[in-house]
Amino acid sequence: MARITLDISMSLDGFVAGPDPTLEDPLGKRGMELHEWVFGLAAWRAEHGMEGGETGPDSDLVAEYVASYGAVVMGRRMFSGGEGPWDSDPNGRGWWGDDPPFHVPVFVLTNHARDDLEMQGGTTFHFVTDGIEAALDRAEEAAGDRAVHVAGGADVVQQVLNAGRFDELRIHVSPVFLGAGTRLFDGIDGGAVKLEPLPMPASKAVTHLRYRVR
Amino acid sequence: MARITLDISMSLDGFVAGPDPTLEDPLGKRGMELHEWVFGLAAWRAEHGMEGGETGPDSDLVAEYVASYGAVVMGRRMFSGGEGPWDSDPNGRGWWGDDPPFHVPVFVLTNHARDDLEMQGGTTFHFVTDGIEAALDRAEEAAGDRAVHVAGGADVVQQVLNAGRFDELRIHVSPVFLGAGTRLFDGIDGGAVKLEPLPMPASKAVTHLRYRVR
Repeated sequence: MARITLDISMSLDGFVAGPDPTLEDPLGKRGMELHEWVFGLAAWRAEHGMEGGETGPDSDLVAEYVASYGAVVMGRRMFSGGEGPWDSDPNGRGWWGDDPPFHVPVFVLTNHARDDLEMQGGTTFHFVTDGIEAALDRAEEAAGDRAVHVAGGADVVQQVLNAGRFDELRIHVSPVFLGAGTRLFDGIDGGAVKLEPLPMPASKAVTHLRYRVR
Repeated sequence: MARITLDISMSLDGFVAGPDPTLEDPLGKRGMELHEWVFGLAAWRAEHGMEGGETGPDSDLVAEYVASYGAVVMGRRMFSGGEGPWDSDPNGRGWWGDDPPFHVPVFVLTNHARDDLEMQGGTTFHFVTDGIEAALDRAEEAAGDRAVHVAGGADVVQQVLNAGRFDELRIHVSPVFLGAGTRLFDGIDGGAVKLEPLPMPASKAVTHLRYRVR
């Protein structure tokens, strides 16, 4: 069975998005700063159809993770680009453009049933209306012997964590304080989750945390 | 001038104390789990007058930090062991026993002026009623060429951070979720603080984060 993993960038004060998100700026105020460590990396650029960029341990890490994913699970707002009128468009094609950077099946948690949405480059969005466990089960089947990447948002991560379904957490702590926004970990059923820290390479741009979930 | 540093243990979900603290259990429910990585270390045991314990990188780190402190700053509740009737006792001798584990001058932020309180083993509590900047100034003077250790609680850490007075942050992320309690970073004025990650040794028990504050 595929492993279920988290890869997410978080501020030192625990936020994965800043306050006041909009369709133009779905990560909220200063939310893009969380991801600055990744934009210049060769592996990230390649995944987004661009050449060049910085090589090294951070880029190798991103390349390794991207190659490991066989399916993605995300929330409805992450698919659509946030809360708003566009969000309930039954024909909405999402926020990720015609060639989304996933290149694998993506399972979107939603209350609105709709047909699969096949995009360019190997990404197909599947809309799952029967809850997180069903979404994870379908993603695991689609991923085969590769991993399921839980992409977010925070509410989806919390659901997967509280359902005890994560095998590994990788949290990339960006050296910024956002001060407000969406917290990654809120209301976690703490006693139920046992974590084992795993070593990660040091980086000047970000601090990689990695845990096996027991 | 002495450097002003933070050394604090935090849960992966950002808490430095669990919910429902009491005088017997001032760290709140499951709050002691944050510090489990440190109790068995030779350096921590030595500082608390005990022999034996585990040697290695974590113990070396603790020994290095403890040796670097020339003064400590803490909040009134950290001195007294939390909120409660004992907390306003004008003759209260604090929560830390007759021989507190600091062995240097400790500056306690409070609204109640009182005389210095000299304990065994080199710890003297000084009570500072004119705010965080004054407490830090006095601690720096007392520390000489050693560092000022901001011990907590979270509200004091936030005051020092928002006043721009930290030189270095060392946060020891324990591999637990507390789910609720006191958050270390709440309402930080994010744009004002620039952080530079510094390398730290890996550990199986805890993840050490270290930042230079610019």
